Amino acid sequence: MLIDVSEQAATRVERKERTRAALLEGTLALAADRGFAALSLREIARSAGIVPTAFYRHFSSLDELGATLVAQGVRELRLALRELRRTPDARLAETVRFVFAQVASKHDLYGFLIRERHGGSAALRSAISVEMQLIVRELVVDLSRVRTLDAWSPDDLELAADLIVSTVAERIAEYIPAETRDRPRIVDNAIRQVRLISLGMGAWRP
Amino acid sequence: MLIDVSEQAATRVERKERTRAALLEGTLALAADRGFAALSLREIARSAGIVPTAFYRHFSSLDELGATLVAQGVRELRLALRELRRTPDARLAETVRFVFAQVASKHDLYGFLIRERHGGSAALRSAISVEMQLIVRELVVDLSRVRTLDAWSPDDLELAADLIVSTVAERIAEYIPAETRDRPRIVDNAIRQVRLISLGMGAWRP
Repeated sequence: MLIDVSEQAATRVERKERTRAALLEGTLALAADRGFAALSLREIARSAGIVPTAFYRHFSSLDELGATLVAQGVRELRLALRELRRTPDARLAETVRFVFAQVASKHDLYGFLIRERHGGSAALRSAISVEMQLIVRELVVDLSRVRTLDAWSPDDLELAADLIVSTVAERIAEYIPAETRDRPRIVDNAIRQVRLISLGMGAWRP
Repeated sequence: MLIDVSEQAATRVERKERTRAALLEGTLALAADRGFAALSLREIARSAGIVPTAFYRHFSSLDELGATLVAQGVRELRLALRELRRTPDARLAETVRFVFAQVASKHDLYGFLIRERHGGSAALRSAISVEMQLIVRELVVDLSRVRTLDAWSPDDLELAADLIVSTVAERIAEYIPAETRDRPRIVDNAIRQVRLISLGMGAWRP
């Protein structure tokens, strides 16, 4: 009897988890055509096979669902980069390759985030921007430990970090809709552009 | 009598021009909320006070209307940059300031183009991308005339030109939704980032 109850509970939890995942996936699919700001709660619920009122068992609002997608993408990437940073000999090229591997493994999610970064929903734009600013800040901390950049002001460090992060974001935006055969070239270009920036940093007089 | 007819014709031409302008403006306003891909011909027509069938007196399709907006923005900017380039002493900082002045004077149009650059309409994305690639190519031609870059391969020149254009596009995307007081700082950052890239170009060994 006890076993039955706990099995039922497990099934319920699993089912809830599955519906939640279906809502997130349904949103990515619907937003690919028309953008997040154009979607209604009703059609997102329908895409996951639930009635609109059942949506609230999973998310308190569409904005919360959007924030969850940001967390699954940019925030996870930021935390993964933080881990990578602990490896003392992690090189720039490897870091850029790592970022593109993450993007490739969650293609639809990053496609969504790239579109919504400048998209119609102000809440989503702001959530993505906050996470990207945190990536820039963490890169500033890394750069401030580089001996040759000792004389740089925090403002100059932020300028360079922002340029590196923007450049990789631009190449990700190019990577996502690209044909498979063009992708290695785009990753290489990202690496070479970051290298060009780091050469500029070597020549910059603060 | 003749005068009357020609006046009637003038009024008709003027009226047609006004309706066309209203269709373009209505599209910018509607797309600000939901993105171009989510708009219907019917609601764009309504925004200009005409019936849906009358739309075709002005544009053959929604894509043609989108292409017109790209021409009014990116293409005009590209042609203006080509003019500016003829001034032999036009400096990088002035060119970047000129670009932001253009953006500021057509705020809604550039807001639209920045969003649609990675937005839901493939036709519009592609039209914007083509014009931006042309800006990159023309910058490659400029760079290839710089004596110190003589040894660079066309591939390396394109890499650098693409980095400069991407960087300015990223700062424009930041500029458009920014508060008025933050804008001069964003333009300054764009100029400093382009300077950092040009320093990198000075140190790059092809």
